[in-house]
Amino acid sequence: MNGANFLIKKKYLLSPGPTPLPEEVLSLASEPIIHHRTPEFSQIYMEVTDGLKFVFQTENDVYIMASTGSGAMEAAVVNTLSPGDKVICINCGKFGARWAHIARAYGADVKEIVLEWGDNFSKAQLVEVMQEVPEAKAVFSTLFATSTGALYDIQGFGEVVSPTNAILVVDGISGLGATPCPMDDWNIDVLISGSQKAFMTPPGLSYISFSSKAWNLVESSTMPKFYYDAREYKESLKNNTSPWSPAISLILQQKKSLDIIKSIGLKNLILHHQILGNATRSGVQAIGFDLLPRCPGNVLTAVKVPDGIDGIRLVEIMHEKYHVYIAGAQGPHKGDFFRIAHLGYMGGFDVITALSALEMTLLDLGYSFEPGQAIKAAEKIIKENWQ
Amino acid sequence: MNGANFLIKKKYLLSPGPTPLPEEVLSLASEPIIHHRTPEFSQIYMEVTDGLKFVFQTENDVYIMASTGSGAMEAAVVNTLSPGDKVICINCGKFGARWAHIARAYGADVKEIVLEWGDNFSKAQLVEVMQEVPEAKAVFSTLFATSTGALYDIQGFGEVVSPTNAILVVDGISGLGATPCPMDDWNIDVLISGSQKAFMTPPGLSYISFSSKAWNLVESSTMPKFYYDAREYKESLKNNTSPWSPAISLILQQKKSLDIIKSIGLKNLILHHQILGNATRSGVQAIGFDLLPRCPGNVLTAVKVPDGIDGIRLVEIMHEKYHVYIAGAQGPHKGDFFRIAHLGYMGGFDVITALSALEMTLLDLGYSFEPGQAIKAAEKIIKENWQ
Repeated sequence: MNGANFLIKKKYLLSPGPTPLPEEVLSLASEPIIHHRTPEFSQIYMEVTDGLKFVFQTENDVYIMASTGSGAMEAAVVNTLSPGDKVICINCGKFGARWAHIARAYGADVKEIVLEWGDNFSKAQLVEVMQEVPEAKAVFSTLFATSTGALYDIQGFGEVVSPTNAILVVDGISGLGATPCPMDDWNIDVLISGSQKAFMTPPGLSYISFSSKAWNLVESSTMPKFYYDAREYKESLKNNTSPWSPAISLILQQKKSLDIIKSIGLKNLILHHQILGNATRSGVQAIGFDLLPRCPGNVLTAVKVPDGIDGIRLVEIMHEKYHVYIAGAQGPHKGDFFRIAHLGYMGGFDVITALSALEMTLLDLGYSFEPGQAIKAAEKIIKENWQ
Repeated sequence: MNGANFLIKKKYLLSPGPTPLPEEVLSLASEPIIHHRTPEFSQIYMEVTDGLKFVFQTENDVYIMASTGSGAMEAAVVNTLSPGDKVICINCGKFGARWAHIARAYGADVKEIVLEWGDNFSKAQLVEVMQEVPEAKAVFSTLFATSTGALYDIQGFGEVVSPTNAILVVDGISGLGATPCPMDDWNIDVLISGSQKAFMTPPGLSYISFSSKAWNLVESSTMPKFYYDAREYKESLKNNTSPWSPAISLILQQKKSLDIIKSIGLKNLILHHQILGNATRSGVQAIGFDLLPRCPGNVLTAVKVPDGIDGIRLVEIMHEKYHVYIAGAQGPHKGDFFRIAHLGYMGGFDVITALSALEMTLLDLGYSFEPGQAIKAAEKIIKENWQ
């Protein structure tokens, strides 16, 4: 803490989960824990379930599980499939690959479509793949690829899959609430999400919902399961409760966040993410950077690292020097790009902070550019939309 | 909350008190209140007293009062003076004027030196004034003028006053901890401060310390007093306690903040404020603004509003649109300048946020300048000093 120069340093969380939380959600964690087998908690549990249905835009039940998103992915697989079932997995990145991984772990017969990171996958391409695997029981897809910043055409996939016998399973973990994804309107059969993204709650809760078409598969599924057995969650929900102990404090926090989301409105929440996404993209492009994905979404912005810059060092300086926690690229792409999230409880000045820390980091790395231009571009968009 | 454009808006406190608090200080307020007539609290009370002596840089006692800074100003007057005493008050702004106001309210005979807001007052000028009022019992002065952003030469004043029979009384409410002010080394006889400034604690506590020269006046003072009677505080401190009920939760928070200040070190804390001050001044000057004070200090930056800009509207837009709580000018100077604080628990990105909000506000007001330049200038200073 000593030195000729000294600055008090605050931490800024600009990662795609966990995301920053509203103060009134944080402070709830210091209130006493209530007991879960009480009318008081049942009331809260049902309000959270109703709030989740509002964000999922579905008439189906939404089940709350004490797990992170990967648990909900496993729940989607083990509840709808039986060993040997043929499935299509669109591997659009780290979490698209996870669909294939889980399905294979449970003995499904996986047709895996491996995309270049950031590439599109069109409705027409899905039609072709489904013709190759006509007996596919399910198509596993991703709304927003957290690892690449790419948005996928779930509405189009729904149009392709809906008339077939297959179900459409969508990982909406990072995307739901930040980008449009009306479950019922888009004919999504299984939709999952998690608490620590646009839902503005700490990590530890995941959410899953099944269409009636998917529920038919749940009834016939022979995959081994216990904790994630959706039939248990359905039965318990009839009594306004969960089959196993609920993560009480997180559910209380999720209730408060859902109250905030409802007061904002879903359309506005999505618009909010779009403005922050526009400002961030405009900022990085103003200082000469290119985006990774062909179709970028509004959860995070994945930015290619230009030649001559050490992308791993860039993220390290952002973290270690400026305490601005953006995300690096994962796995084999480490150092090739970085990811600035604009997700959940962030505002315009979080984007400014991220871009200013990026400008200072680029100065530290000797990159040639005009400082202030990223901010100027972002300010223009933030100012115009700040009403 | 509705509209075609929508952004989640966070609040940013960039005022010269209250200042933002470290998270670990905030969260203490949700811990149970302990009883104050216990060995546990006495231990904490003494640790806070010792921590205050560390910041005051004094061997004298420092007394803790449940009041804001204006209460400590009153305590300084009523404990050292008697009705009819001649005193000199250096009125360097709103709070300098308050010295004269309080002294007159209690019947002192005040020689008030009224400075133009932002003007200097030199050691040589003080020599002259003291020659005009050779029987003055006290000189009332201000370390940092919160209303104008000006820093005063307390070290020089100490050199002038120390050899005389008068005492030097210093309002260090906003300045102490942010700018050098060693009580004993600079021959300050009464020094006061408050919890909600560089001390990084909520408002509600004030601090006062007397030199032995000042204490002689305390012993002979005939001003009416009860709550602020320093003799009561001195007696109680012998028993590690306060004469009246202490503001327990604030004292617990002040203990935590003092732990943080001690871990930072006083020299570093002052350096921190200097860097933030340099960055802010550099930022506003880069877009063509002038500073109000001739000798600006590092607590806040007072910036003149150029012709053609409505200074009242500027502050309103910063508050109402961007939720960035800078301070306007007070009293008769309302609209002539504004004040961006860089005090207490703020970091480099708080300066960036203030300057970015200012740039967007100036765009809203139609001011002609090159957006991004304030940020560029501030980034240069922050980056160079961020180690």
